[in-house]
Amino acid sequence: APAKPARLGLCAACHGETGMAQIPGAPHLAGQKLDYLREALKQYRDGRRNVPLMRAAIGPISDADLDELARWYSAQTPSAPTQGNP
Amino acid sequence: APAKPARLGLCAACHGETGMAQIPGAPHLAGQKLDYLREALKQYRDGRRNVPLMRAAIGPISDADLDELARWYSAQTPSAPTQGNP
Repeated sequence: APAKPARLGLCAACHGETGMAQIPGAPHLAGQKLDYLREALKQYRDGRRNVPLMRAAIGPISDADLDELARWYSAQTPSAPTQGNP
Repeated sequence: APAKPARLGLCAACHGETGMAQIPGAPHLAGQKLDYLREALKQYRDGRRNVPLMRAAIGPISDADLDELARWYSAQTPSAPTQGNP
């Protein structure tokens, strides 16, 4: 399993440390496809996905940090009990 | 569990019938938060998420059909073996 990313804390506030969302509106990330997570993060960073909260949270993240976060969440296993909750 | 949506076939080509992605670039949808899926589908439909393939695939979908698809995928359980694959 990947080492815990240094920047995980801010992400975890909404997506959880293991990628199970903590708040309405935030998606689960646990076990999501790595290529999809990486591309989504780049799109939030660049504004192609125009979500001000995500753009502010990500800031001018490096590709390396971005990759580390994508690998972390992709490597997590979804926990069944909260699956499908709104 | 929800009844299988009539429009599931087109979605399933890339996201699988149970929401485990079949192709690179497509995200897993199984067990994703219902509110997130519903909002994402609306954003693809409206072009706020500017992904031509998704906009073409979704077309002028009704809110009811959109809701049916979101509920279907949200109710699925992620299958572990392919989690985290790129």
